[in-house]
Amino acid sequence: MRPIAGARQRAVRPERSMDMGEPTKLDAQKKRDALSEHPAKGDLAAMSLVAQFGPGEPLRLDCGVALSPFTIAYETYGHLNAGKSNVVLICHALTGDQHVASKHPLSGKPGWWETMVGPGLPIDTDRFFVICQNVIGGCMGTTGPKDINPVTGKAYGLDFPVITIADMVRAQAMLLDRLGISDLFCVIGGSMGGMQALQWAAAYPDRVFSAIPIATAARHSAQNIAFHEVGRQAIMADPEWCSGAYLAQGSNPAKGLAVARMAAHITYLSEAALHRKFGRNLQNREKVTYGFDADFQIESYLRHQGMTFVDRFDANSYLYITRAMDYFDLAADYGGVLANAFHGTKARFCIVSFTSDWLFPTTDSRQIVHALNAVAANVSFVEIDTDKGHDAFLLDEPEMFATLRGFIDSAAEKRGLSE
Amino acid sequence: MRPIAGARQRAVRPERSMDMGEPTKLDAQKKRDALSEHPAKGDLAAMSLVAQFGPGEPLRLDCGVALSPFTIAYETYGHLNAGKSNVVLICHALTGDQHVASKHPLSGKPGWWETMVGPGLPIDTDRFFVICQNVIGGCMGTTGPKDINPVTGKAYGLDFPVITIADMVRAQAMLLDRLGISDLFCVIGGSMGGMQALQWAAAYPDRVFSAIPIATAARHSAQNIAFHEVGRQAIMADPEWCSGAYLAQGSNPAKGLAVARMAAHITYLSEAALHRKFGRNLQNREKVTYGFDADFQIESYLRHQGMTFVDRFDANSYLYITRAMDYFDLAADYGGVLANAFHGTKARFCIVSFTSDWLFPTTDSRQIVHALNAVAANVSFVEIDTDKGHDAFLLDEPEMFATLRGFIDSAAEKRGLSE
Repeated sequence: MRPIAGARQRAVRPERSMDMGEPTKLDAQKKRDALSEHPAKGDLAAMSLVAQFGPGEPLRLDCGVALSPFTIAYETYGHLNAGKSNVVLICHALTGDQHVASKHPLSGKPGWWETMVGPGLPIDTDRFFVICQNVIGGCMGTTGPKDINPVTGKAYGLDFPVITIADMVRAQAMLLDRLGISDLFCVIGGSMGGMQALQWAAAYPDRVFSAIPIATAARHSAQNIAFHEVGRQAIMADPEWCSGAYLAQGSNPAKGLAVARMAAHITYLSEAALHRKFGRNLQNREKVTYGFDADFQIESYLRHQGMTFVDRFDANSYLYITRAMDYFDLAADYGGVLANAFHGTKARFCIVSFTSDWLFPTTDSRQIVHALNAVAANVSFVEIDTDKGHDAFLLDEPEMFATLRGFIDSAAEKRGLSE
Repeated sequence: MRPIAGARQRAVRPERSMDMGEPTKLDAQKKRDALSEHPAKGDLAAMSLVAQFGPGEPLRLDCGVALSPFTIAYETYGHLNAGKSNVVLICHALTGDQHVASKHPLSGKPGWWETMVGPGLPIDTDRFFVICQNVIGGCMGTTGPKDINPVTGKAYGLDFPVITIADMVRAQAMLLDRLGISDLFCVIGGSMGGMQALQWAAAYPDRVFSAIPIATAARHSAQNIAFHEVGRQAIMADPEWCSGAYLAQGSNPAKGLAVARMAAHITYLSEAALHRKFGRNLQNREKVTYGFDADFQIESYLRHQGMTFVDRFDANSYLYITRAMDYFDLAADYGGVLANAFHGTKARFCIVSFTSDWLFPTTDSRQIVHALNAVAANVSFVEIDTDKGHDAFLLDEPEMFATLRGFIDSAAEKRGLSE
């Protein structure tokens, strides 16, 4: 196994960076332990591996701007093999980040996909080299609106250029180039991560051996744009948002962001799951109080979701990333015919949807499957019966694990990646 | 035909009240014309008929408070017959009001159910005497949080007692008593109006000949409480809400209320209708702007919904009325068994739901039907196939009109109300 020369850089602020050890022999547990000792907020890049792209390597955005300089923060798990043929790129969702299978540096919570990624798990870190990058526009170390605009010396705020799913993927490809990784054994993600997986397959057909878009769509629906717009309006209605310049002005649109999160969170669940989990149960009381306290458990739960979210997420990043999802319409980039996006693809696809997901319903996945069928692509499609709603992809869903394990193992065999 | 003595009072402020003419011979067009000449905002009671209840007639609320004095603003259409046997009580929804079939005094728009109520329409004002009252806690002339608290001399704000669906119905019954109307030929309403219709049938079994609860539920679901809580939090997050005292402080939580309305409005529609109506169509532009303007028609539409709503609705009323819906759980008041609420009922029921209504899905209506079946009630149930979502009950839905016309005509015949 050959180490990747120059693949990893220290954190932006060296004095707080951590020794991540020899790059291709990363010990996940060791890294977790190190992180738990360094929970300092405000130095997120130091919590991850980072790659910096200087003036000679701008990120060319769909909006026409060449973003430069920029930084990508990322995490890796497992070992890159000699042939560099075992790379799994995980793409995170709207409010996700690179901390897939290691403790979150701000919340202290386990990685968001620890059930999926690890030794012996479907995305088996004993066999695969897993990379997850914080998306461009994000707030966990990759350059986004809360970072300093070199032109003004202040946080970008709304001066940050509007980004797209294609821009996110373009940035990811630049990091892979930097790491000397030419192609991916697998690109996988749920929700917005699934959009990125589709974009990868369309934009870089020669670099994708297999793709697993989960609970996603080839274009954002009117209803989903509507929900995003509500969230954005909630943030913008908060006077502490200060037209996006809250960092420069020392304010914090936490209330607006919390409302945005609460509204969005409902869409990630299902009525059945809410009924099963909360019903009309009261919160630590015998009867209603005839007031506006959180009488019901569901109210208390939602308020908690809103309050904890603002501790780990940037309001402007929320605007930018929701906008990227709104703009996603893969067919539009290929003459209005989705199948054209996959013309000649050799990738193997596994499309997964959930019966109770009303944000990205199965009909969205079927459209992807139909497009892939139209170009005779190698595609598996599984609709998983669950009441857990859109968030099922993040949860303990045995049929999803079994499906992904089977697909990945089969693809690995085809790829010559024996166990 | 005998006129109802003392049934109608002048508006609260006599100098601005209008002569509505002889009470039982109300000419809808004449009233409309009069209203159009008196669009003055801030004197809503003057725009409707009002009934004032003084110290000797308190409204006894579920929370234990005896509300007094209070005013009910209402509209009537058609003529009361000699036997007073032709009364149809229409109950409005969350953001509805008494202006069922006449121009709204603030928005200038047609009444919210002009397609349903009028001469020759399913609720035929040539045959029926129609009453619609603004609910207690509302903001269109009936006493609510924006009215003056006689104890403090200031607007109630959050000092207004929390009200329930049962309280709304109790107030309606007091007005009927005042009008000398002992029983209803029909009580009808959609959404929260349907909750009131159910409550009427349960609380006053001897006063209801027929009931038509549309697109409603016998209890508010966890998901619906969740959406209401998001709306309330959006209002409360607005610093201009001032802990509910915005009227006293001369501020206006319009931004928060607009966000609440936008979030709620999505739930009134369906994904299919949004796709059909807006899809991903752009708003007066050829391509996206890479910004946060309303690029998409759905965004522009939602913003418009939010902005126009705040011109006609009070933020605190929104809190109180959503809370009343959250608290609604008819079975809970009858030993946990919904059927008990209808034990021995002689009323004829027509339950209507819509296939694409995900706010009050058909399963909610079926629970009501099952309860009515359990007590061998006379019940019709129709699920109408439409993509218009929850709001279908307000829209041009021919199958609904046909269903209601058939049910009402049949009930009228049984009641001896020949055409």
